[in-house]
Amino acid sequence: MYFSSWLSQLYRGLSRPIRRTTQPIWGSLSRSLMLSSQRRNPEYSSFVVRTNTCGELRSSHLGQEVTLCGWIQYRRQNTFLVLRDFHGLVQVIIPQDESAASVRKILCEAPMESVVQVSGTVISRPAGQENPKMPTGEIEIKVKTAELLNACKKLPFEIKDFMKKTEALRLQYRYLDLRSFQMQYNLRLRSQMVMKMREYLCNLHGFVDIETPTLFKRTPGGAKEFLVPSREPGKFYSLPQSPQQFKQLLMVGGLDRYFQVARCYRDEGSRPDRQPEFTQIDIEMSFVDQTGIQNLIEGLLQYSWPNDKAPVVVPFPSMTFAEALATYGTDKPDTRFGMKKYLKRKDIESIRKFSADHFDQEILPVFLNTNRNWNSPVANFIMESKRPELIRLMETQEEDVVLLTAGEHNKACSLLGKLRLECADLLETRGVVLRDPTLFSFLWIVDFPLFLPKEENPRELESAHHPFTAPHPSDIHLLYTEPKKVRSQHYDLVLNGNEIGGGSIRIHNAELQRYILATLLKEDVKLLSHMLQALDYGAPPHGGIALGLDRLICLVTGSPSIRDVIAFPKSFRGHDLMSNTPDSIPPEELKPYHIQVSWPTDSRAAKTH
Amino acid sequence: MYFSSWLSQLYRGLSRPIRRTTQPIWGSLSRSLMLSSQRRNPEYSSFVVRTNTCGELRSSHLGQEVTLCGWIQYRRQNTFLVLRDFHGLVQVIIPQDESAASVRKILCEAPMESVVQVSGTVISRPAGQENPKMPTGEIEIKVKTAELLNACKKLPFEIKDFMKKTEALRLQYRYLDLRSFQMQYNLRLRSQMVMKMREYLCNLHGFVDIETPTLFKRTPGGAKEFLVPSREPGKFYSLPQSPQQFKQLLMVGGLDRYFQVARCYRDEGSRPDRQPEFTQIDIEMSFVDQTGIQNLIEGLLQYSWPNDKAPVVVPFPSMTFAEALATYGTDKPDTRFGMKKYLKRKDIESIRKFSADHFDQEILPVFLNTNRNWNSPVANFIMESKRPELIRLMETQEEDVVLLTAGEHNKACSLLGKLRLECADLLETRGVVLRDPTLFSFLWIVDFPLFLPKEENPRELESAHHPFTAPHPSDIHLLYTEPKKVRSQHYDLVLNGNEIGGGSIRIHNAELQRYILATLLKEDVKLLSHMLQALDYGAPPHGGIALGLDRLICLVTGSPSIRDVIAFPKSFRGHDLMSNTPDSIPPEELKPYHIQVSWPTDSRAAKTH
Repeated sequence: MYFSSWLSQLYRGLSRPIRRTTQPIWGSLSRSLMLSSQRRNPEYSSFVVRTNTCGELRSSHLGQEVTLCGWIQYRRQNTFLVLRDFHGLVQVIIPQDESAASVRKILCEAPMESVVQVSGTVISRPAGQENPKMPTGEIEIKVKTAELLNACKKLPFEIKDFMKKTEALRLQYRYLDLRSFQMQYNLRLRSQMVMKMREYLCNLHGFVDIETPTLFKRTPGGAKEFLVPSREPGKFYSLPQSPQQFKQLLMVGGLDRYFQVARCYRDEGSRPDRQPEFTQIDIEMSFVDQTGIQNLIEGLLQYSWPNDKAPVVVPFPSMTFAEALATYGTDKPDTRFGMKKYLKRKDIESIRKFSADHFDQEILPVFLNTNRNWNSPVANFIMESKRPELIRLMETQEEDVVLLTAGEHNKACSLLGKLRLECADLLETRGVVLRDPTLFSFLWIVDFPLFLPKEENPRELESAHHPFTAPHPSDIHLLYTEPKKVRSQHYDLVLNGNEIGGGSIRIHNAELQRYILATLLKEDVKLLSHMLQALDYGAPPHGGIALGLDRLICLVTGSPSIRDVIAFPKSFRGHDLMSNTPDSIPPEELKPYHIQVSWPTDSRAAKTH
Repeated sequence: MYFSSWLSQLYRGLSRPIRRTTQPIWGSLSRSLMLSSQRRNPEYSSFVVRTNTCGELRSSHLGQEVTLCGWIQYRRQNTFLVLRDFHGLVQVIIPQDESAASVRKILCEAPMESVVQVSGTVISRPAGQENPKMPTGEIEIKVKTAELLNACKKLPFEIKDFMKKTEALRLQYRYLDLRSFQMQYNLRLRSQMVMKMREYLCNLHGFVDIETPTLFKRTPGGAKEFLVPSREPGKFYSLPQSPQQFKQLLMVGGLDRYFQVARCYRDEGSRPDRQPEFTQIDIEMSFVDQTGIQNLIEGLLQYSWPNDKAPVVVPFPSMTFAEALATYGTDKPDTRFGMKKYLKRKDIESIRKFSADHFDQEILPVFLNTNRNWNSPVANFIMESKRPELIRLMETQEEDVVLLTAGEHNKACSLLGKLRLECADLLETRGVVLRDPTLFSFLWIVDFPLFLPKEENPRELESAHHPFTAPHPSDIHLLYTEPKKVRSQHYDLVLNGNEIGGGSIRIHNAELQRYILATLLKEDVKLLSHMLQALDYGAPPHGGIALGLDRLICLVTGSPSIRDVIAFPKSFRGHDLMSNTPDSIPPEELKPYHIQVSWPTDSRAAKTH
């Protein structure tokens, strides 16, 4: 019987006052530029007809003749017009004199979101009409010439951030949704963070950016891999879930330090907030140990972190898998928060119900009052004399609530871990801010088990991560006696309760790799014969890591979904709603690939379509 | 009847003395580093156990205690050992004294290509034993400790550049082939050139690096697209040949300047020196014209060009498609060479035979002697009085040979273009160097036709490039009267006779796009309804280009094949010879995708396999 008492400890964590992240408004679009211009000054108007961007004009440009290109965001009384480009908004004065009739006609008649080119002079706004909320609010443009570059039809929704749209609509008209401040900001931040990562890896630390194939062979046990039929009957490529084999083979090939912003594929059917194709920052190094990789990644994140975010503090704390499970009930704890004692008595009932409904598990609350009496149904079952000892172990204070449960270690811990998040949700609905979105709590989780019992047959083993993970040096002898107890040299990087990366030191000894694959995992070694052979031919010790770029950028930008940091994401069912993808293919186009559709019996009608 | 006389002009081109490119040797491995260290000084030994790379040690390191990791390249009389890493070679002295017996044992017994770690002191080589051909030739390592990190089994071939290997063997053991100087050099140069391109685009000119999906919808007429079955019966994704639609939609989305190092797919079956997946530098800009894109690309190539190559001279010359065809008989002329009068009489016979055999076309040579008499079978058919006029037109000089042919313009020009290259091959086998591999002749080809007659039905039209290409502004009126005569705003970039890039200004007007798709090309507009809709909603004028990265790096490095600049290329039949890809898939793994194999009747036997 196992009693878990971590919740009481967490209750005493800090909940600091939160800086509310306000919804950005169009007027502050130039923030997106600042991200880069703080470091460099890209020329945004090179090679094109415009002289300036809309968003960059300030009082320092007064008197300049400028040519701008942009979208008509807003028009008032045929007098003012607000022109928008990716960089921001600027106010344009529509000329009223008779000689400018043609210019006025163009600017007054063009529908909203039409694309125009205007030339004119930067002038001061009349005193009192400055707009301090708008970066270009001190100036306006006195137009001399205008050209309608493209007229816009009636839009399905307005390009304004405060307009609420369903996500399906946003995805169907993605090219319109991309005009929003938030999407522009997210995609530009992503581009700039990746660029800084490249500078760190390639320019500062001698990594080589190497592209690896995506048309590859299926991996043993590689369900979830998309198939690509070839022109040879019955032969298929697979789209790999990661460049794992290639990155290791590059180390065998003496490339020493590899990285790639790698496109990966995973066919998981419908899972919320997953994408069938995703991107990882993929890294491998020779002659490195776990600490080396961790230092590299801490430096990488620190170097590439956006200037407008709370800075990254290194080194990141580290915790073993066992400790994380026992303390937080998960291998990806959100360490931004402990808990505060805001739970009410009726909350406890809803928590007990939640755990009974979702996990078929009984939860026993213990309320500690000032005289440390146990106000709990469990009190009777625990000897009076043992209680002070338990209270000491649980480090409780008065007014704490302790949630106890009993059962198998992993299961009990997982439940309590989920209850902890459930409590956090509950408290946040009450207005208690526990998880500050502007805080970034990184954490390494280490010393994972090397193997897990197979779900379908718990007597057999499967790799906890993948079969190339090296065992912990202290546990190698256990491989031959108690393999279930072997810890691995795998490490996960956790940010705010999300796994954003994982990697390991790899096996470089062919015999050890063969023993694990054939004897312990009972895999078909033939599918990996090239890997085993490569290890025989002078493979250096090596290790690496992969960071999930979509998730990382999602957390950095505080986006509700990874779909908000991907230009053209698929829906949760794997569809592109804009182009109607995937789509039917005429049977004659299947012929060269020697495949035909096996229509399910109940949808035979669809075949005739 | 059309007489072509360009060959005589070309004969008078310059053939300059050539700098022979010598086969690089292992001793000069550090060249690969210089490429980057001229610009930056990456730390190659951060985060790892080694203190230095093998290749970097010089006299300036004398007396330093160093730890090195590398492969045993060579051992002599149990006294010296040459250690190799990606950076170069260094000589290690095997200690001979009794106290170092264990170190000696390790270093003397480890097979060649085993991986070792050694620690010791950098000392001077004894006077007279320096090796000036080796960058580390002034020093050697006096070893104190050594560790065998991994032993190597007997290799299928030696890791030495002068060892000739078949390409099949190189591809089967790609991880060993990657250890060669040339592959290390090629992949590192590729990484560095791409990095510089990114700096130019992203940091200097405000481009946004945006990843676009590779699981997409088939394009109209999109044969050559790999299919990816989805879990919905009869529904397929396609792997697109380029991000064409997405890059245009990004412009509609106001992203302004997009680039991506984009993975693209093309299923062409077996074509020499093509790959089923390849990489392009993909670029799109709003509010730009043809000149803008050309200036951008010239700057891009100049900025990213390796320092150890002949510099890129800008602007690049430009030539219309019509002119290129008439003058060079191709749309990708190699402008490195004209021709010199080295042809012998018997060569002419072989050229006539070549053109008869390969093109079913008669060639008439004209030899001009000192008195300008026509020594040719064609002489009798051309009036004496017309000859001076022809000689003037052809700008011939005495001792020139003119090759004449007659026929339909395109066909006659193409033949002569191929003969020009054939003559160049012929002359080069005689030792006349016409095509200096260290010279880089860039050329823009512009004013392509917008449409071509369909091969299978010449009365119908197809896009010469793709249906989004904008017509030449001067020819728009012809769209409605003589569409075959319309020139496009497409441009190709040619380097040394290879097309390395192509792009165009796109159509941004929905009506024009609809007319071209539906009326002229008779395409199924439904497949592209999202594109047409996007153009309706305020699409800015835009254009772009894509550079073929594999081909470009191949030319820059002077590699015989693009397979030499790709880490893990497929064979010309689309196979990965290392891992045996593509491979058979058990039928139960096809089930989730609702497909089955259609076995060809004559290979039914294979099914039972």
